[in-house]
Amino acid sequence: MAEVKVIGASLSLFCTRIEWALKLKGVEYEYIEEDLKNKSHILVNSNPVHKKVPVLLHRDKPICESLLILEYIDEVWKDNPLLPQHPYQKAIARFWAEFADEKCVMGAWGACQAEGEEKEKAVESAAESFAYLEKQLEGNKYFGGEEIGYLDLALGWIPHWLNVMEQVADMKLLDADKFPLLHEWAQRFIQLPLIKECLPPREDLVNYFAASLTYMRSLKANHQ
Amino acid sequence: MAEVKVIGASLSLFCTRIEWALKLKGVEYEYIEEDLKNKSHILVNSNPVHKKVPVLLHRDKPICESLLILEYIDEVWKDNPLLPQHPYQKAIARFWAEFADEKCVMGAWGACQAEGEEKEKAVESAAESFAYLEKQLEGNKYFGGEEIGYLDLALGWIPHWLNVMEQVADMKLLDADKFPLLHEWAQRFIQLPLIKECLPPREDLVNYFAASLTYMRSLKANHQ
Repeated sequence: MAEVKVIGASLSLFCTRIEWALKLKGVEYEYIEEDLKNKSHILVNSNPVHKKVPVLLHRDKPICESLLILEYIDEVWKDNPLLPQHPYQKAIARFWAEFADEKCVMGAWGACQAEGEEKEKAVESAAESFAYLEKQLEGNKYFGGEEIGYLDLALGWIPHWLNVMEQVADMKLLDADKFPLLHEWAQRFIQLPLIKECLPPREDLVNYFAASLTYMRSLKANHQ
Repeated sequence: MAEVKVIGASLSLFCTRIEWALKLKGVEYEYIEEDLKNKSHILVNSNPVHKKVPVLLHRDKPICESLLILEYIDEVWKDNPLLPQHPYQKAIARFWAEFADEKCVMGAWGACQAEGEEKEKAVESAAESFAYLEKQLEGNKYFGGEEIGYLDLALGWIPHWLNVMEQVADMKLLDADKFPLLHEWAQRFIQLPLIKECLPPREDLVNYFAASLTYMRSLKANHQ
C-alpha cells in the first residue's frame, strides 16, 4: 500500500496543485480519482466536515484543504522548499494565496456566469484582484523569486483554467497589455515540463466549464 | 518608536487573539486603536486590500489576517510555541482554526440575526459546527493539550463574545449539557490571568452587539 495517496478530481485546480507539489518534492504517490457525483466512503471518512477533494492521505492520516496540504507537504519533505524561509515572506505568500483563492478564483468564475450589463462589471472587479497579483511579480521571474514555489503552485490555475474560462464565457481577463508580468509568468510557468504533465486535457476542461455554465445559468433563469 | 505595533479595535475578537499571543510570548508592543468608521491612513496603507484590523506592524512591515499574524508571531518569537511542532498536528490545528472562523463565528452571528422560525434552524446549524470542536477536546485540557496554544487563542472568543451574543440575541448555543468539554474549556480558558486581562468590558460588548443587531434587522426589514 502506498504511503502517500491523493484523493482528487482530475479537472480540479485545487487538486492539481497538490500533484505539482508532490512531484516537485519527488514524493511518489497513488492517485485516487473521486466521483464527485457519488462520493466514496474514503472521501467522506477522510474529510467528514467538507467532503471535498483534495485530501492527502499520509500513512492513512488525512490532511484537507489544498493550501494546508501544500504547507504540510513542505514541512514533511524538506527538499525543494516551497514556502519562503523568512517569516515575513512566508506571511506574504500565505496572504496572497488565500486572497487569490477567495477573490481571483471566485471573481473569475463569477465573471464567467455574469451576463449582459453585469458581465462588464464582474470582469472589471475580477481584474482589480488580478492587478494585485501583477504587482507581486515586479522584479521577479516567479512569485517564489528565481524558482517556483508555494504561491506559483497556488496561482498555477491561471494559465490553463482561466484561459479555458475566458474561452467558454467569451471574455478576456488576463489581457497581456494590462497584465504583462502576469501574462509572461503564465507562459513561463505552463511550459515547465513538471507543470505541463499534470494538466488535464484542455478539451475536457472546456466541456466541463461549458456544462457548468449552462447549468448555473439555467438555475439563475429559473429563480428570476 | 515601538518595534511591534498592533492596529486593532478593542471589541474585535480577531484583534484580541493577537494581543494574547504577544503577551504569551512576552513581546512588548504598542497598541493603536482604530476608528473603524473613519479608517486611518496607517490602516489603509498597511492593509490596502482588505482595510481591516488587526494589522501587526513589525519594524514597520505590515502583516494582515489574524490567523496569519498568529503564525508569524510564532515563527519570529520562539518562546512558548503556539502551534504544535509536528506537521500533522499543525495541519489539524490550522484546519480547525479556519473552520471555526468560517463556520462558528459566522454561524453564531447568523443565529443572532435570525428571527422566528429561522432562528431555531440557525441555532441548530451553528451547534452542529460547535459539535466538531467539542470532539477535538476529548482527552485534552486545552485544544493545545496541557497548555494553551494557537487553536485556543483562535477559539478564545467563545467564552466571552459568544456568551454576550447569546445574551443579546436571547439564545443558547454553548449548552453545558450538550457541550460539556467545550463548556469546561471555556471556563478554564477565561480564568487564565493573561487571557482575562485583555478582554474588553462585557458591557461595551453588549452595547456593541445590541446596536449591530438592531442595525442588521432594520436593514433586513427594509429589504423585504
